[in-house]
Amino acid sequence: MTKKEVAVGIDIGATNTVFGFVDSLGNILGEERIKTSQYDEIEVFVAALYEKILLTSQKIKDNITIVGFGIGAPMGNINKGTIEYSASLPWKGIVPIAEIFGRHTNLPVIITNDANAAAVGEMVFGGAKGMTDFVVITLGTGLGSGFVINGKLVYGHDGFAGEIGHTAIRPGPSNRECGCGRKGCLETYVSATGLKRSLLKIMADSMEPSELRKLSFEELDAEIIYNAAIKGDYIAKMAFTHTGMMLGFKLADVVAHTNPEAIFLFGGLALARDLIFEPAKQYMEENLLGIYKGKVKLLPSELSIQNAAVLGASSLIWSMNK
Amino acid sequence: MTKKEVAVGIDIGATNTVFGFVDSLGNILGEERIKTSQYDEIEVFVAALYEKILLTSQKIKDNITIVGFGIGAPMGNINKGTIEYSASLPWKGIVPIAEIFGRHTNLPVIITNDANAAAVGEMVFGGAKGMTDFVVITLGTGLGSGFVINGKLVYGHDGFAGEIGHTAIRPGPSNRECGCGRKGCLETYVSATGLKRSLLKIMADSMEPSELRKLSFEELDAEIIYNAAIKGDYIAKMAFTHTGMMLGFKLADVVAHTNPEAIFLFGGLALARDLIFEPAKQYMEENLLGIYKGKVKLLPSELSIQNAAVLGASSLIWSMNK
Repeated sequence: MTKKEVAVGIDIGATNTVFGFVDSLGNILGEERIKTSQYDEIEVFVAALYEKILLTSQKIKDNITIVGFGIGAPMGNINKGTIEYSASLPWKGIVPIAEIFGRHTNLPVIITNDANAAAVGEMVFGGAKGMTDFVVITLGTGLGSGFVINGKLVYGHDGFAGEIGHTAIRPGPSNRECGCGRKGCLETYVSATGLKRSLLKIMADSMEPSELRKLSFEELDAEIIYNAAIKGDYIAKMAFTHTGMMLGFKLADVVAHTNPEAIFLFGGLALARDLIFEPAKQYMEENLLGIYKGKVKLLPSELSIQNAAVLGASSLIWSMNK
Repeated sequence: MTKKEVAVGIDIGATNTVFGFVDSLGNILGEERIKTSQYDEIEVFVAALYEKILLTSQKIKDNITIVGFGIGAPMGNINKGTIEYSASLPWKGIVPIAEIFGRHTNLPVIITNDANAAAVGEMVFGGAKGMTDFVVITLGTGLGSGFVINGKLVYGHDGFAGEIGHTAIRPGPSNRECGCGRKGCLETYVSATGLKRSLLKIMADSMEPSELRKLSFEELDAEIIYNAAIKGDYIAKMAFTHTGMMLGFKLADVVAHTNPEAIFLFGGLALARDLIFEPAKQYMEENLLGIYKGKVKLLPSELSIQNAAVLGASSLIWSMNK
């Protein structure tokens, strides 16, 4: 029996680190996890992770052979193989995770941030198959982005390309504070948190009744606002419209940088579909320079939220030498 | 005697079309021009241009052999070999200039816009030698930009990447009108025309005396404002400071897209050096996301304004297969 080649896709999150064995078609043959937050020492974390990967690989029915390890992590730097100054992970400063991982294996180890992994995942396994120039925007608690140009992920000179969540959409000192320390960043408007912030402002200005007036800022989340919106709640709908408009406005600027074929939206907010896509598309088109009008596709990601992180991380290996 | 290989660099402008024979080191061995505005028919223009190139090539003392033709032109589309809807050139609609040129020669013919040609020129002959990730911003009557990523010019899915002159810097209906039909575009602030517009606003708000109060908007130009500024004229200096600040603010956003090693400024305004570089650098650094701070070089182009267009156009040929 011939062995089936798999890449290990590893998604390092603040709470859990999930990994899976992914074949070249995007089938996940087995998945497991360890608790990230339990390991204060990066060396101990990597050793435990590697051991768990080996143990899990032995339990898989298919006869597999591992061809490499792809890692998605906040602040993952593909140039240096490091995680740098992540605010959410237990390890501080610059962590040379690829090198530490390499003490256990001679196979390729590639690390990048979540949004870049999502972009490569979309190209290898999702809706961007066959595309050479596109952008993926991940909408979660924050906003991430990954650029593919000429068929290759753009990682930039310092390994940190694709941080459009921290470009200015409403510049000026009176605008929304961002976790990065500045004001008016795109992420403060277009993200699950941005949606909540917009909801509160609309609620303050409007006299419309809304069930959401019963909930505190901390109790609110994107799903609650979505459920209210599809039931016809005016304030919830307006919050989505405003979020989509701000996104669309910014996308017109993104297009003027690299002129992509398509922009994919991924993550919780993207699941709200028309509520966010319609205003985003309309406002993008209205603000596009004439030469781009009607040419750029705005599409939902074809990766499921559940599998995307592992698929995206594994695709770092599958896209090597392509 | 061995023949010296040269690429023909052709710069198509509204008034003149200038061409030169450029060797692989960037030496211009001969230069000539024809009047663009004299030719209503693109076929007649190309035939006249090609004939003039041949005639001129025979007059050059060196024994040369032409290896290709690089063309820089407004709205030049590198994907399709076309000039599309140029507002300034005599030919309307979509002009398949590479194909028409190809009726005269079997050598490679490559066309792109001026800013993209400047970017490749900077890589082949200028300050970006050896760099793989950088941006060139051309500051003339308007603002153009060219992106190089992974060592290749980014032309985008439709051939129109790098139009950051038409990204929003001051969004909103009350802001400066742009030639593209929108409002608040970067170009309306950061360009020779933008400098004049800022000067007028500062003049209106300020009580400071200034020799420039004697000149009309139409009489003013960037050189006059520069000369006033270096003589200490307060309003002229403030106009440069404001222009540099707006540029620096936007550059922080540009960095968050593709994380370049360096940004080069080219063109008339860039010659004002400290007057524009100092506020631009300061404001870029202040607005950069932490991970980029202190890492991105802001540099003057190393191509002379006089030769850049021809060098840039010829570099399209010299950078082939690199």
